[in-house]
Order: sequence, then structure tokens, then C-alpha cells
Amino acid sequence: MTTQLVKNAVGKMIPTEINGQPVTPFMGARQYKPTGRKYAPPLATCADYPDDGDKRLPDLKAALVKAGLKDGMTISTHHHFRNGDLVANQIFKIAAELGVKDLVWFPSASFPCHQPLIEYLEDGTIHHIEGSMNGPLGRFASQGKMKGMGVLRSHGGRYQAVQDGEVQIDIAVIAAPTADPFGNANGVTGPSNCGLLGFALADSQYAHKVIVVTDNLVPFPCIPWQIHGNYVDYVVEVEQVGIPERIVSGTTQITKSPDRLYLAELTAKFCDKAGIIRDGFSFQAGAGGTALAIGNYFGDIMRERGIRARFARAGSNKYIVDMLEEGLIEYILDGQTFDLDGVRSMRDNPNHVNTSPFTSYNYHGKGNFASLLDVVILGATEVDVNFNGNVVTHSDGYLLHGIGGWQNCLFGKTVILPIPLFRDRIPVIRDEVTTICGPGELIDVIVTERGIAINPLRTDLLETVKDSGLPIKTIHQLKAEAERICGKPKPAEFTDKIIAAIKWVDGTVIDVVRQVKE
Amino acid sequence: MTTQLVKNAVGKMIPTEINGQPVTPFMGARQYKPTGRKYAPPLATCADYPDDGDKRLPDLKAALVKAGLKDGMTISTHHHFRNGDLVANQIFKIAAELGVKDLVWFPSASFPCHQPLIEYLEDGTIHHIEGSMNGPLGRFASQGKMKGMGVLRSHGGRYQAVQDGEVQIDIAVIAAPTADPFGNANGVTGPSNCGLLGFALADSQYAHKVIVVTDNLVPFPCIPWQIHGNYVDYVVEVEQVGIPERIVSGTTQITKSPDRLYLAELTAKFCDKAGIIRDGFSFQAGAGGTALAIGNYFGDIMRERGIRARFARAGSNKYIVDMLEEGLIEYILDGQTFDLDGVRSMRDNPNHVNTSPFTSYNYHGKGNFASLLDVVILGATEVDVNFNGNVVTHSDGYLLHGIGGWQNCLFGKTVILPIPLFRDRIPVIRDEVTTICGPGELIDVIVTERGIAINPLRTDLLETVKDSGLPIKTIHQLKAEAERICGKPKPAEFTDKIIAAIKWVDGTVIDVVRQVKE
Repeated sequence: MTTQLVKNAVGKMIPTEINGQPVTPFMGARQYKPTGRKYAPPLATCADYPDDGDKRLPDLKAALVKAGLKDGMTISTHHHFRNGDLVANQIFKIAAELGVKDLVWFPSASFPCHQPLIEYLEDGTIHHIEGSMNGPLGRFASQGKMKGMGVLRSHGGRYQAVQDGEVQIDIAVIAAPTADPFGNANGVTGPSNCGLLGFALADSQYAHKVIVVTDNLVPFPCIPWQIHGNYVDYVVEVEQVGIPERIVSGTTQITKSPDRLYLAELTAKFCDKAGIIRDGFSFQAGAGGTALAIGNYFGDIMRERGIRARFARAGSNKYIVDMLEEGLIEYILDGQTFDLDGVRSMRDNPNHVNTSPFTSYNYHGKGNFASLLDVVILGATEVDVNFNGNVVTHSDGYLLHGIGGWQNCLFGKTVILPIPLFRDRIPVIRDEVTTICGPGELIDVIVTERGIAINPLRTDLLETVKDSGLPIKTIHQLKAEAERICGKPKPAEFTDKIIAAIKWVDGTVIDVVRQVKE
Repeated sequence: MTTQLVKNAVGKMIPTEINGQPVTPFMGARQYKPTGRKYAPPLATCADYPDDGDKRLPDLKAALVKAGLKDGMTISTHHHFRNGDLVANQIFKIAAELGVKDLVWFPSASFPCHQPLIEYLEDGTIHHIEGSMNGPLGRFASQGKMKGMGVLRSHGGRYQAVQDGEVQIDIAVIAAPTADPFGNANGVTGPSNCGLLGFALADSQYAHKVIVVTDNLVPFPCIPWQIHGNYVDYVVEVEQVGIPERIVSGTTQITKSPDRLYLAELTAKFCDKAGIIRDGFSFQAGAGGTALAIGNYFGDIMRERGIRARFARAGSNKYIVDMLEEGLIEYILDGQTFDLDGVRSMRDNPNHVNTSPFTSYNYHGKGNFASLLDVVILGATEVDVNFNGNVVTHSDGYLLHGIGGWQNCLFGKTVILPIPLFRDRIPVIRDEVTTICGPGELIDVIVTERGIAINPLRTDLLETVKDSGLPIKTIHQLKAEAERICGKPKPAEFTDKIIAAIKWVDGTVIDVVRQVKE
């Protein structure tokens, strides 16, 4: 099969078809306008559901069979348990036992705990994965071993794809820390509490069949009901749905590295000099070590001035919960809890609000929250001289990370990437990024340990900080500085085979990932 | 125009078309099965909405014009302010000023405060009303004066009709006690707080254009967000959206009438002897004087036995809030607050949960909550010897009430109608009800001051209470008793003109209302 390629608006050659579906090439950050209708799932009727509301079935296998599991179906799961998920692997083990083939797995993200699924990718049970492939599954795909082409979407892009009918979910399996027999479910209570279930919202609304799997069944009503049982077909009790401790990843501690702390301090100073930190402002910082340190510095500035933030977007953990409880932040709008303090706060504090990719990130809505943020702090594996950013591949070409909310957050008013100038002696600022995940037009500031580069499009920012004493440089100066130390990096080498596509927030394709030449 | 008629499953002659749309005749309580898809609203894109999330326009007129208001459109409103609504009349005043004609008004209910709309029904601004017409608008329709045919739906039927695309809302106007410039809105805070906005949920999800009107604008984020701004096009500030004191109707006080108190006591005794009042049971009682008294008797029984209800469905008011706070009820699942104690409790008590017709009543969902209730206490204007019930017309034929959640609640496990044997010397139990709103197959028990009639279909109930000492009679005995006292009532007299259709919960037509011969 020869793949036909076309050039998109960032100059990338992308295929006209992915897994047999036609592709719209990326046209620019805000250029593509959809003209169709939302996806329309089949009508249901109460006449087909038990009057007493008891939708329980004996086990997951019974539910999958009753949901009509068959070859070629699309099966979705959520990733609120992150590396502690205990459900996804079971689904495909059952599918393999039943001899079902060519499934599409549509997780909101996958993690190293899903490495056992390589067996089912190899034996044909799973045709391909649509969703981020963190770690081993990404490496497997990068080696050209996945039967179909991977499709990576942002959290908002996933909602958009489901809402728009680009991805039609046949069966959604929703692991729930608490549920009732009717299918109402939440993530804030129960022994496996993971906080919320927002990543499964689209799945519940649009999937043809919805299975809720829980290890904490309560009598109706399960309150709060983050997932409405009115969307749910079957409920299954299992021994354990997830390991809540593993929602905490190793990076959710404030960095102790002096270099990283300096990066964080410089970023906070920049925000301050740029006039961003003022009473009623809003910010989003990730859960990485540097981002957490930046939040800390923000806290110091707010305390000193007696001001507070109107809201912070999170990925929550104990640091931001502390700021909420101290009164430095009025509201946390939270998409996923990253530790058990986050879970507790979301359960008990009405100002710690659970959100979903629909409210926060869906680009095919009537606005979303991402563009309301005054400042957004993000990471990247690489940035290029046109401010394009990469978050999915390493400079050696391997696809090892998902997009998360990264693309969606680029719509914030000021987007800052604090990054080291080099990692393992490999420069991070390049002539071209290995994979474009976000266009430079949306990335405003690069903060490195050796200076700050501002996107020339942000003449306002350049003007504001020109006499601030901050180490402002051009991105070319920063790149040259890194290359003086590390030498000019060699680009990764690839075969022609496309192993994954990177979707933009509007469903167009911004780039592809090719098989690494090993 | 001659209207073609067909006979439906309860023997009623109904038209094959209503306002030019084809009609499916009622087939039985659970017989009709939809085969289509949900309605698919047009896709939106953030590119068309302001990045800063500020969707404000100067006034309602500007918003209606920008939403594209034109002849023949369907305009929706909600009724959480009940008789204190200040927004609906303004919409049609503006439409009349703009010379727009033949609008369909699609309220979740209308009240006497909407009497001024008769002017716009007369001058052709409004073609017809789809929704309950309490009081003057119903009388106007019953006089044959409305241009088009009215369509009455239950709360759940309204959600179903919107979800299924039977009614396509062009512009939804959502009066909100609190909102932010992005369109997030709630009913629990602000000077005009009315509790919740659940009746506007379908409108927000499916209308092509959504306008939020508020008198309490707060900075983003408006928390809680009962309506998601992601569905909202425009936000308008006005001086006052509603009069919260008028959500309290005169009937939301416990009855002092000895007859009614006896009815209430007898109903509670019946529930007790029938084994319904046990630990963990659930009940729904309305907000009328008799229903409130029944709730009180339930409370007495629960206190005496040391048991509690798992949940109660409401229309909430101070009486049920007291029971929640005393610990007699674990959860209130509330569709509309009927007084300010209800509003306060919903705002402050996490166990007082706001619901919507989607969660509670939508028959074209994967189940709903109505069928989970152990016992439901409802009213009726008339009942017939086949246990069919009427709630919309009086025995003189005038259409003076809406259906509310009445049809939806008939799916409860045991449905009891405590009704007086006669009102104003007119017997309530008839050979045939003036208008069938609910089929007898779903109505289990009629409690009157002179005895209790159990539907012969409920052989289990008949068996359980046979030696209870309760005054069990047949419905024919009760009817005869009333007629001995009051004489045999004459049926109302009608012309041939159909002025309104009564939809069943599944979108089929169960009966029609004709013009009263005056």
C-alpha cells in the first residue's frame, strides 16, 4: 500500500487517509471550521432497562458479551488511575479469550502498566491504539510493530473527536471508585478513589454501550454522580478497579535541583515583571517538579502583596490544595487529581471543582476555559526557532509521551515553556522539532537557565519587559548558546513508515510520527 | 382543513398530524420503541467565540437579534421562577416590536404571570404554546383562540422531545439567578435564587442558540455551574430575572382541612400496612397540602420505628428539608425548589442534590429514577373506573393545568392518588376522565375519604392489605357512593376543534383536548 501525502500549514507531509479514514490537514491554529452536526447516538428507551434500576451483571466478560463485543469494535477506557489502572488489561484479555480481533483501543491515555497489552497488539486482538502511548506501548509503535496507525489527541481533541463522530465508541468501560446498581458513579469516594471521572464523560454520553466497573457498590443514589447512570447499560462489581497510590507519579514533588529551581524562579519573576500576577488573575501549572516550584513562587508573591488568584487550573496535588486552603486561590478547576490530597479536597471543598475535557478543552464548543487563563506553564521535549513545540517524541525519534491537555492549554493568554537548554547534553531548542504538536503562533515565551526568549509575535510582552533587567534573548541566541556547549544535534532517523498521527485540537492532522530506523 | 383522526390504545381519537408534524398514537405505557438517533445540534467552534470568554451583549433585544430571531422559530424558557418569571414576557414583547410572527413558545411550564402573552397570541407574534398552560393561557386555548395546537408534555417528555429532535429549539433563553460572562449559571446563589436550573438542561444542550439572562453577574467561574457556559452563546445582564418569593405557591403549606388530613393519614396508614415504609425505602410526595401532610405522617412512623428513607424525590420545601436535617431522609433528589428553605438546603447540603428531567424522567434514556421509587403520591383532577387519570382539564372541560412530572412518576413501584370523592359537589371518580393523561395500568391505588380502591392488576397489594382493617372498596363502589350524594355528573361539552394534544412520556399522543362549547 502506498500512502498519498499532502503538505499541511506547518509544512509537514501527512497522509490523506489514516486507518482508512480521510484526513483534514492542519490549516493553522484557528483556521478550520467544522460545518457538520454533533454525533447522534442511538435512542434508548427505559422499556429496555430494568424498572428497579439494577443493571448489574456477574462479571466484565458477561457485560462485554452482552454489549455485543465483536471484531473491529472501538473500546474506550479512561486514565484517572494513571499507572494504577487495573481494568483495561482485563478487557483485552477477555477479548482474546473470546477470539475477538482487530479492536481499536481508545483510552484517554495509556501508561507503563498497560505493557501487557503488547501481547494483544501482537496477536491481532488489538489493531491499533487511539490515544497517548506513554512508555513501552509508544516504543512498540515506534518500532513499526503496531498493525494500524496510532492516533494521538489532546484531552480536548478526544472530546471533540467523540462529539463530532470522528471516533465512534462501541463500548465504553468506565472504572469507577464508587457506583450504584443504576450506573451513577464517582471518583471521590471508595477505597480506590482517584478524584473524578471527567475523562470518561464523552464516553458515557456518546458510546453505544457503557459498562461501569466498580469495587465499591453503594445503594442508589451514588452521590455525587459524576457519571450519570442514565447513560449506563451495565454495572459490574470487581475486587479492585485501580491502585489510587499510583495516580501519584514520581514527578509530582517540588524539584530539588538547583537548575530547575532557578528556572522556576526566573519564570515566576518573568510573570511578575510582565504584570501577570495581579489580584484576580488565573494560572495553570502542571504537576512536574519545576511547575510545582513555580506555583510556590507565585504563592510567595501573592502572600507578599496580599492578593489572590481567582482560579487555578489543575492537575491537583497537595501544593495547590494548600494554596486553596490558605485562601491564595479562590477556586481550583481540576481535570485530574495527582495525589490523595487532591482527591480529599475535591471531595470536601466545594471550591475545588471537578471539570471535564468538555468544559475545559473541547475546541468544538461555544468557547472553553483554556483560553481564559492569564498564564499557562507547560513543558516540552523540544522547541524550535519558530516556537513550535514537541511533547510526544524524544529527540531520538521515539514516541514516548501523550499530548495530555498541552495543545488545549496553548490557547491561554500567555503560554510559557520553562525548559532546560539541554538534556543529557542534547540541545532542546532545535532548527525543527522532531514532531510538531503545537504551532509556534501559540507559544509565547521560552524560559531557560541561560535566558528568556519571547515570541516576536508578542510585541506587547517584549515592550513590557524590555527594561526589567530580565535576561531577554532571541531564540536563535539561546539555540546557538546550547550548540556551543553540546555541538549541533543530529536529527533522528526514520523509515518512511508512518506509525502515528498527531491531531490538532480541531481534528485536523498537524504532524505524523514515523518508524525509528534502529 | 379537515383533521384525520385515528384511535389510539386507550380508545381516544387523535389527529394524524399536529401543527403539520406527523403523530404516533399512544400504544400502551411501555410499548412504543424508538429506532432513531438523538438530535444532533450543529457543531460550534471556539474560533467563533471570544478568547477571553466574555459573551456579554448589552440587552436581551441585542441577543435575540444576534441569535437570528425570525418568523416561525421555536423559543424556549424554563419555569424555575414559577409565577415569578420576569423574562418570558420580555422576549415576546421584543419579538412583537421587531415584527416577528408565528413563533412557537416552548416553556417548561407557563403560569398566570404570563397572561400578558395573550396579546401576542392574538396579534400573531406567537403561533402556539408547546408546554403546560396553567390558568389564563389554558382558558384562552380552551376557548379555541390559539392559532396553532397546544402540545402538553410531562417534564420528562419535554426532555425526550428535545433529545429526540421532535422539538428543535432555535433560541433558548435561560433566566439565571447567577451567571458569569462565559455563560456558566446556577440557581442557588444571587438575589433571585430559585434553586436550580434543571428544566433548562435540555435547552442548553440542544438549542441552536442559547442566551443566559442574569441579574447577578459574577467573575468567571460561576460555581456551581448547573448550566455549562460551553453551551451558551450570549450573556445578558438585566435588573431582575425573577421574584423568588413567587416560587412559593399558596398550596405549599400543610393542609389544615380535617378532610384532607384524614385523606393524608389514611394514605400513610395504607403505605404502612402495605409494607412500603421500611428502612431504606424511597418516596415522592408533591408539594400540595395533602401530600405534605402525608410526608409528615411518614416522618412520624419513621421516628417511631427508628428507620430512615434512603432518598426522597422532591419539589422541596421546608418540610422535607426538616426531614433531611433531622436524618429521617439520607438524600433529597430535587427537581425544583418550592420555597427558600429548599433553595438554602440545596445550596449548602451536599445530600440535597439538584436533578434534571434527564436524570429523573427522560423515558428515552437507559433507565431513569422515577421507576426506582417505592411509593409515589400524586394528585388528579379526575380518575375513571379503569384507573385512568386526568391532571390537565377540569370536569367542565377547561385546560387549566400542566402535566408536570405526573406522567413520569407513574412509573414508581406503587402509585397512590389520594383524592376527595368530590370537589364542589362534582364527583372526581368518573366513567371516563375528560382527558386521559395517564393510563390506568400504571395507577395502583385511589385513596378517598370514604375508602381505598386498589387497581385489580395489583393482586399483590390486594392480598397484602386484605386483613388490615383498612376500608378497601372497589372503584365502582366509590363512584357509586359519590353519585349517591352528588348525582351523576354530566360530561363537559366540546366542539370538534382540537386545541391541544397530550403527549405520553415516549412522544406518542395519548389524548387531545377540544374547544369548550361555551
